[in-house]
Amino acid sequence: MFRRRMLQATGVALAGIAPQARAADAGVPPWMTQQGTPVGDVPYGTPSPFEAAVVRRLREKSVFRTAASAHAPLQDLDGIITPNGLHYIRSHAGSPTIDPDRHRLLVHGLVDRPLSFAMEDLVRFPSVSRLLFLECSGNTPLYKDSGVKPDWTVQDTHGLLSCAEWTGVRLSDVLAEAGVRPEARWMLAEGADAAAMARSVPLAKAMDDAILAYAQNGERLRPEQGYPLRLLLPGYEGNTNVKWLRRLKLGDQPFETREETSKYTGLLADGSARQFNFVMDVKSVITRPSPGQRLTQTGFHEVSGLAWSGRGRVARVEVSGDAGETWRDAALQEPVLPICLTRFRAPWTWAGGPATLLSRATDETGAVQPTRTALVAERGPNFFYHYNAIQAWQVGPDGALRLVL
Amino acid sequence: MFRRRMLQATGVALAGIAPQARAADAGVPPWMTQQGTPVGDVPYGTPSPFEAAVVRRLREKSVFRTAASAHAPLQDLDGIITPNGLHYIRSHAGSPTIDPDRHRLLVHGLVDRPLSFAMEDLVRFPSVSRLLFLECSGNTPLYKDSGVKPDWTVQDTHGLLSCAEWTGVRLSDVLAEAGVRPEARWMLAEGADAAAMARSVPLAKAMDDAILAYAQNGERLRPEQGYPLRLLLPGYEGNTNVKWLRRLKLGDQPFETREETSKYTGLLADGSARQFNFVMDVKSVITRPSPGQRLTQTGFHEVSGLAWSGRGRVARVEVSGDAGETWRDAALQEPVLPICLTRFRAPWTWAGGPATLLSRATDETGAVQPTRTALVAERGPNFFYHYNAIQAWQVGPDGALRLVL
Repeated sequence: MFRRRMLQATGVALAGIAPQARAADAGVPPWMTQQGTPVGDVPYGTPSPFEAAVVRRLREKSVFRTAASAHAPLQDLDGIITPNGLHYIRSHAGSPTIDPDRHRLLVHGLVDRPLSFAMEDLVRFPSVSRLLFLECSGNTPLYKDSGVKPDWTVQDTHGLLSCAEWTGVRLSDVLAEAGVRPEARWMLAEGADAAAMARSVPLAKAMDDAILAYAQNGERLRPEQGYPLRLLLPGYEGNTNVKWLRRLKLGDQPFETREETSKYTGLLADGSARQFNFVMDVKSVITRPSPGQRLTQTGFHEVSGLAWSGRGRVARVEVSGDAGETWRDAALQEPVLPICLTRFRAPWTWAGGPATLLSRATDETGAVQPTRTALVAERGPNFFYHYNAIQAWQVGPDGALRLVL
Repeated sequence: MFRRRMLQATGVALAGIAPQARAADAGVPPWMTQQGTPVGDVPYGTPSPFEAAVVRRLREKSVFRTAASAHAPLQDLDGIITPNGLHYIRSHAGSPTIDPDRHRLLVHGLVDRPLSFAMEDLVRFPSVSRLLFLECSGNTPLYKDSGVKPDWTVQDTHGLLSCAEWTGVRLSDVLAEAGVRPEARWMLAEGADAAAMARSVPLAKAMDDAILAYAQNGERLRPEQGYPLRLLLPGYEGNTNVKWLRRLKLGDQPFETREETSKYTGLLADGSARQFNFVMDVKSVITRPSPGQRLTQTGFHEVSGLAWSGRGRVARVEVSGDAGETWRDAALQEPVLPICLTRFRAPWTWAGGPATLLSRATDETGAVQPTRTALVAERGPNFFYHYNAIQAWQVGPDGALRLVL
């Protein structure tokens, strides 16, 4: 019933895939003996009850229940789309329940005409859709060894990362309607949550490719993602993609909000802080196999993961099974889009002993994911945000995977 | 506060967009005065309660609650991805609730080794992801005037259409594991629902690009879409993409199941039936504005819709505002992928009187969407499936849109 076979995968001839094929089972399962759920009973569907463990999770219990992060279960996801129900959340005052008919976007400051837009006004502008990743700049807090728990999964270390098809209108069109004054250089974006979360954005970015998004994977935004309106700044750290967007104010300098002074800055070794670190650097992570999972069979395994860059397309992903001694190019699944998650896959043979799996991404600008040693050396011991180092997963002799630094 | 402006949209200079910008509103909305929903309270999210009307619907009450179709709300969707909760449903015995640990896929017939696969066996094969549309071949039942209700929306006429990123394993890899005998030409695919829904598929298609899919938009399949396993035949009519897949049998001729003799055939004028009409032809439809909606302002409107072809990429979509007297090329939103929905957009100025909106798609093989007159003339009065004619929406003097044939 079994045989070893040669399998062509990503151009590499592989020996050793031998799925556990079983003897034919003639039994009729119970779900074939009765009618299933009526078609009209699920106007809006939900996952199978057998998938109840695939949910967003907080890495640790948060003191403030509304100021916290929930991580996407990357180890259980396939492809590049994050289903809306599982998109990561970072909120500073919880998710408001906003009546879209009462929501307004105010555009003011250095404009010719201050304007207030209702949602019905905004959706009349020409629309645009784009598949884009979002990543919290605090994702993967691994600069320091302290605080890292050995039982962390990829959901814990990398789960503040998601990807969706966003639809909205070009911010440049809306700003043109208000009339941008020549002296304007920066834009304040403020949310309608109780934190009034606000960030300063260079006007050049706002006029380039920013989107006022009202839809996510086809449907209107989810409450946790900013319903009814959010700012999308392709490639910028998650925090700047202000949710529940209520106000855009143009000015001639940054607005120095709490979120760009106390937080979201990079504290360097000399005590100075790197401010306005907007763009998310090239990064990748293996999602399968990953910590919390255990290999039960030697031989062929597919190593699969995600790569992304805030600067453009992913150009290359390499995978190592021996802690970086040798590398092999992974296959990149089409479509490979700019500032979008890219799914990579590589065949790997587990001989049965200890092994260390790594992935290393390169983007189209030539930027390569650094080693952790190089990254920490460059940024110093107090840095926190924008960690993008190569990530190692250690396979133990029993096949169990765990995080190693 | 208002001005008329020139707007560059899809390369065409347009006068007349004037969104209803309002005076600035200084009031603080109630959702800014209190904390929102805690982050940990939504492990799996759902849409805003204000979007409760955006759901799948049955066109008419079905006599059989488990043998029916639920339509996706195309008029409310943006971009190309259909969120999993809104993917159209066509079931013959409802949606079974299958325990994935007990589910098996039997591969038998003209193979060297009959095999039974558990889900854990199948997911070990190399994986592949693809953005693909699915359309029921009974979508858009407009060959005849009788039975068409004037209040039908695009959800009623075209809503048996959806698009997702599917992930699974190549069927050819799995069949190779069983060993395809040289005399095999056809494959029976059977579902594990109480209808044991089954179709015959040419082996050439099975070996070409067929996928055994276990994931949809990142997460495992929804129950209504075949959890835990379905067949995906890119470009083929929905019915052949067998859900809850339990059995694949290879043979030297078609299996002549009920679904390809009594149903899913095309009855021609001479009384003969066209059998095995697999590929979905090039088609498009304007989703906004569309019947049930009403234009409230003259001037600029964006006409937006979906185009698709089971034969490859959409090459061109043209839009007419005058019942086909003149046409304008619509912009195609990237990415434009083969056998995937493509979002098109075109600027249009409503002068305020009656108008008729049409869209016409051409695919990369050169196939052009036919007029209804030509389609009905070619197929005769008894044909039912694979309707792909140009669709007209009539704008009344009051701006209300309705279906016209």
